[in-house]
Amino acid sequence: MTETRPQDPRPLQGMRIGFAGLGLMGRPMALHLLEAGADLCVWNRSRDVAEHLLRPGMQVCDTPADLGRASAIVVLMVADTHAVDQVLFGNQGLAQGLDAGDLVVDMGTTSVMATRDFAGRLSQAGVDFVDAPVSGGEIGAVDASLTIMAGGDDAVIARARPLFDVLGRQFTHVGAVGAGQVAKAANQIIVGLNIGAVAEALALVMAAGVDPRKVRQALLGGFAGSRILEVHGQRMIDATFQAGARISTQYKDMRQASELGELLGQPLPATRLSMSLFGQLIEQGDGDLDHSALIRVLRQADD
Amino acid sequence: MTETRPQDPRPLQGMRIGFAGLGLMGRPMALHLLEAGADLCVWNRSRDVAEHLLRPGMQVCDTPADLGRASAIVVLMVADTHAVDQVLFGNQGLAQGLDAGDLVVDMGTTSVMATRDFAGRLSQAGVDFVDAPVSGGEIGAVDASLTIMAGGDDAVIARARPLFDVLGRQFTHVGAVGAGQVAKAANQIIVGLNIGAVAEALALVMAAGVDPRKVRQALLGGFAGSRILEVHGQRMIDATFQAGARISTQYKDMRQASELGELLGQPLPATRLSMSLFGQLIEQGDGDLDHSALIRVLRQADD
Repeated sequence: MTETRPQDPRPLQGMRIGFAGLGLMGRPMALHLLEAGADLCVWNRSRDVAEHLLRPGMQVCDTPADLGRASAIVVLMVADTHAVDQVLFGNQGLAQGLDAGDLVVDMGTTSVMATRDFAGRLSQAGVDFVDAPVSGGEIGAVDASLTIMAGGDDAVIARARPLFDVLGRQFTHVGAVGAGQVAKAANQIIVGLNIGAVAEALALVMAAGVDPRKVRQALLGGFAGSRILEVHGQRMIDATFQAGARISTQYKDMRQASELGELLGQPLPATRLSMSLFGQLIEQGDGDLDHSALIRVLRQADD
Repeated sequence: MTETRPQDPRPLQGMRIGFAGLGLMGRPMALHLLEAGADLCVWNRSRDVAEHLLRPGMQVCDTPADLGRASAIVVLMVADTHAVDQVLFGNQGLAQGLDAGDLVVDMGTTSVMATRDFAGRLSQAGVDFVDAPVSGGEIGAVDASLTIMAGGDDAVIARARPLFDVLGRQFTHVGAVGAGQVAKAANQIIVGLNIGAVAEALALVMAAGVDPRKVRQALLGGFAGSRILEVHGQRMIDATFQAGARISTQYKDMRQASELGELLGQPLPATRLSMSLFGQLIEQGDGDLDHSALIRVLRQADD
């Protein structure tokens, strides 16, 4: 069910919330939780990032275990599946600090199989788990306009829901634990391949000497219309490739989706081709550019 | 410039308009022109289709040359580039019947290079030419909600504009002759590749045992959102593959785009991959299904 966010002043008042991972997206998300009234503890691998963010109502924890002790609900927004594993089960990990009845909400993009494994291991200690990855990027995190796709039991999702209402604009409970990550994998496949579609189309238009601005405009209203044509098509035309969402992240997420496909025996031929194109950009040192820079692979062939 | 259609009662009153090609899209388009007041002549390769459509204010012509003699503006909506060539320059072709100052408007999907050639040959007889291919399919033709992308000189486009206002909802003058066909090629690349993107994403979701309805819903609001996810994603979930737009047409249009890429030295790797997948469906006899049936290539690999 997709629902819109209700308006409410400090809906997280008095809730003991922990936040691990204060990167580009994590920082504004943590601040939104604080503004919504949470009693907030934060942890970051590089402690100085957390100290820098510190403000009234917020504490910095030394370890994930300390974060677990201080919190009833812990949000994870760390780099990748390996980092989630380390934060949960590494030395001084969250699992050591959490009590039965506590809840972990992983909002990063994590492998589906690992997600199911993490949830199973936590449940042995009575700790609940929700995967709730997001779409919308840094802008969505700053504007609290993220699209959130969650996996987990109804009752557990209901406990995490006030946080989602603060952080996002659209929320969907997709299914059981892992289903949120499956939806995110689908999201990243569509985003990556549609960027490739728009890139090939606009590269052809440019090669034919036709104005890509007019073509983008003409196509937006029809079946070729999409958020990617609108936003990333414009970036390709302007050739402004400041991320946005990084090629390296797009590649990582598609590789994770591709690995899930392999495990399930599901062929994903276009995803593989797209990964090889994004991979070329990473090899030539463009991994930090916005994913719309995929068009460079196609255009440079003309040089 | 994209503009919306003004409301006007019989804006084509007294205009001598010819229409060649009474297929699924051509029939409703011709009738819209008639209803808008045109003095309409029609021609179709199989004459009985034209006879069947006949109604007050409409005449059936025996040959394209007759159609040219009866009309000041002739709209072409025939099957492919070869058919356009035949209708224009074949035996008893349009070119034999048209006078200097008359105008040909090709609204089908025709090769860019051939379009420029046809326009050049007609101009030697003082006949003007506009390429104005459309997006929106049979539904768009019936509802007069087509997206029209046109190439040609300003003054010539201006003469054709009243027809476009009757037939479509969005009109863009993309550039010189051929630019409309370049935009249509871009459109078909994006549509074909985004269908492939949605197909791989939903095939993975189904393989993972997650409800594709919920994933589609979750993704529609974010960067993965598109008309294709909305419309074709639903068709894939329902597994209803009645065209819509046929796989055989999608393949033909992408092949034409791919050939343009080859001529211009513009690599289109994802377009080539997509053509091979659509090609597999045509080989197994599914060419008349809707292009959303691409998901069958991916799903049957599980069988």
